[in-house]
Amino acid sequence: MSSPKQISLGLSMRYLGYHAAAWRHPSADPDAASKFSHYRYIAQTAEAAKMDMVFLADGIGLRTKDEPPGALCRSHQTLELEPLTLLSALSAVTSHIGLVSTASTTYNEPYHIARKWASLDHLSGGRAGWNIVTSWSDAEARNFNRDKHMDYDLRYERAAEFVEVVKGLWDSWEEDAPLFDKASGIFFDQSKLHALNHDGKHFKVKGPLTIKRTPQGRPILVQAGAAEQGLEIAARSADVVYAAPLDLESAKAYYANLKGRLAKYGRSRDSLKIMPGVTIFVGRTREEAREKFDLLNSLVEPQLGLSYLYGQMGDLSAYPIDGPVPEPENPVVKSMAKNLLALARRENLTIRQLYTTIAAGFGGRILVGTPKDIVDDMQAWVEADAADGFNLCPPVLPLGLDEFVELVLPELRARGMFRTEYAGQTLRENLGLTQPVNRYVGEAAVA
Amino acid sequence: MSSPKQISLGLSMRYLGYHAAAWRHPSADPDAASKFSHYRYIAQTAEAAKMDMVFLADGIGLRTKDEPPGALCRSHQTLELEPLTLLSALSAVTSHIGLVSTASTTYNEPYHIARKWASLDHLSGGRAGWNIVTSWSDAEARNFNRDKHMDYDLRYERAAEFVEVVKGLWDSWEEDAPLFDKASGIFFDQSKLHALNHDGKHFKVKGPLTIKRTPQGRPILVQAGAAEQGLEIAARSADVVYAAPLDLESAKAYYANLKGRLAKYGRSRDSLKIMPGVTIFVGRTREEAREKFDLLNSLVEPQLGLSYLYGQMGDLSAYPIDGPVPEPENPVVKSMAKNLLALARRENLTIRQLYTTIAAGFGGRILVGTPKDIVDDMQAWVEADAADGFNLCPPVLPLGLDEFVELVLPELRARGMFRTEYAGQTLRENLGLTQPVNRYVGEAAVA
Repeated sequence: MSSPKQISLGLSMRYLGYHAAAWRHPSADPDAASKFSHYRYIAQTAEAAKMDMVFLADGIGLRTKDEPPGALCRSHQTLELEPLTLLSALSAVTSHIGLVSTASTTYNEPYHIARKWASLDHLSGGRAGWNIVTSWSDAEARNFNRDKHMDYDLRYERAAEFVEVVKGLWDSWEEDAPLFDKASGIFFDQSKLHALNHDGKHFKVKGPLTIKRTPQGRPILVQAGAAEQGLEIAARSADVVYAAPLDLESAKAYYANLKGRLAKYGRSRDSLKIMPGVTIFVGRTREEAREKFDLLNSLVEPQLGLSYLYGQMGDLSAYPIDGPVPEPENPVVKSMAKNLLALARRENLTIRQLYTTIAAGFGGRILVGTPKDIVDDMQAWVEADAADGFNLCPPVLPLGLDEFVELVLPELRARGMFRTEYAGQTLRENLGLTQPVNRYVGEAAVA
Repeated sequence: MSSPKQISLGLSMRYLGYHAAAWRHPSADPDAASKFSHYRYIAQTAEAAKMDMVFLADGIGLRTKDEPPGALCRSHQTLELEPLTLLSALSAVTSHIGLVSTASTTYNEPYHIARKWASLDHLSGGRAGWNIVTSWSDAEARNFNRDKHMDYDLRYERAAEFVEVVKGLWDSWEEDAPLFDKASGIFFDQSKLHALNHDGKHFKVKGPLTIKRTPQGRPILVQAGAAEQGLEIAARSADVVYAAPLDLESAKAYYANLKGRLAKYGRSRDSLKIMPGVTIFVGRTREEAREKFDLLNSLVEPQLGLSYLYGQMGDLSAYPIDGPVPEPENPVVKSMAKNLLALARRENLTIRQLYTTIAAGFGGRILVGTPKDIVDDMQAWVEADAADGFNLCPPVLPLGLDEFVELVLPELRARGMFRTEYAGQTLRENLGLTQPVNRYVGEAAVA
């Protein structure tokens, strides 16, 4: 009998959880997402459970009262702390767990991102990760000197160049460039400090970085893109992908597609971990799990529910909430609106039923059941080559994490699917990934 | 007898200290500036001493081997951690001390700065401060899509607008906007969340911020600019100014000038603290202090010394090091080169003597003497209305801080000039500044 495949586990800890009504749950402190103590508890609990990483998604458009009534999000998913500052603070009160957050390539400068994540990698002793995204919301664009978001092609072209600049800056200092030779007065070897001299279509960046090579060589790179250009960025550079497929067949196809692209970049299939997101409602019985799910869904106000559809489909507040989902008149993001409409037609959903589906787990995959049900599903995905692990998106925090640790983790461990001790000190070691080689190493010898 | 005026104390903790040869000092770990433990020790020591704040200056141009020989800085002042991530980490291991760092208005977006500093203010329970600067170095410009730095007028115009946008975003959420009403399902009062809708020459920013009003109302604003436009930004918005005058007469004039500008913005003279920078070499005797000073200066290699002049005067490596300072052929920053040349002529300095002056304290004011000498000088400045406190820039860290705490602080306290306990929990409270009022408060009632 072969030993089962080990899975990687991440924990998404944005807001008070992924459910739109999380803050109304009896267990929730509705003000917690502005408190460091909330995140400290979550990160330390996830670390005690030996999870690979905590993750903070990001996106910073907030709609206000001058927008259509169906647009206004009055949930807890409006207030939070900024991810990079929060992860940095958490680095000081944790020792092993990875610290990953999103930063957009659309409204940042590559020098800033390279520098800040390199610094986090040093602060944490090799536990930093950057989730590479592009920004597609107009609400976010309006905070950065634009009226509309950038076109898909343009922002992905910018993203691809952005990532190459950041990786280049992370190679500025060779590992052995610092000499620290007090006697001679030579602080570092000038020949091992490199200017990048990047001059491309979107960026002109000379370098070098003012931060020495980091414990992980470079921070872990994460990607989530499902479309063509995102897949290529992932195949070329990502260490981890938070994929979003909702069913096993799509997940298998996605996994095969992405892993199949690695060879052309000289990468092995094991050099990239695919960790689909999942929101879990677990109970000791199926009835208990279903009750937890129904309780939260009953707490979603219609106005709030509509706002979860607005981002893709536009304002639906003029239609009957328990009637069929209409063809959207002014979809905000056409491709996403089309997907949602197809889902509604296929499952014959009302507007209320559609927004509940989205509001329950921010549009991600949802599992409701006993520990055995949940782990059966996870194991099936891993054995079918649909996932290397999972990115947990608890409906309510910290409750959903505590329940996972109490109920699901023992079942995963009983089946030998998840570690009981960390393998190493860095996130890279715990994910089983190799240290990258600096592009300049051996250059002088060759030249 | 009136009680003496209480001073404010800040501690600059960039690199391994402000002296160019700090890393060669016998006490120094030359790799410390890349280690969190180094800064944690410094911040916790400064907090135990009840200082107001630790401060990280910033500027991110690093010259490389393709530049003139006289340009290359091979000191420890090339490697560090990124200030915002570092202060965020320190927020988790300190409880009272202020956490202040520089961020440039030239190469950042106001939304990012507003958001990150608001987050740091929450993480730290009200201890964040932002030092507002513009960037004037070409080396930095070349990391941000430019060949040359921006003109003075343009970058100060941008800075002034930048600060107004950031202050506006910090008012997004009124204090009582969050309602957290689980029963009704109303998370916040939509009428108390405000879009800024800024549309100016340099920035178009809608808002609102996704972070609620911070413990200090808004983070502390710090400024250091000495020229006209910087003074106006300081008079309008700054809570603290790190002024750089080198002698008492200039400092008195600067103090009178800046404090005199406050009234036109409706501000009291006490609402802004002027804290000139000072680098202290202290000994139990004057001889001991002078030996410490001489030891470090003897460790500055000529090539390194020249690089400290390059940033202003250009490459002087072709001139005899012990000869007179020449009229620079290609000054990098004309106004600064002119000041340095005037200093050299006035004091009849050689190139070596000029760079030693700069290299000993990064161009700031230097005090060498016994605790009584040092405190006499400080007291004279405070009583002459030249300073409200001081920003300490130790030559070597952590040694310079430890010596200050051991030798100078008792003398300051013996004269009743510095606290023995913190007055409050926030930086604002400890500086004795009042809480700002949100611009929207009472607006609805008036309208």
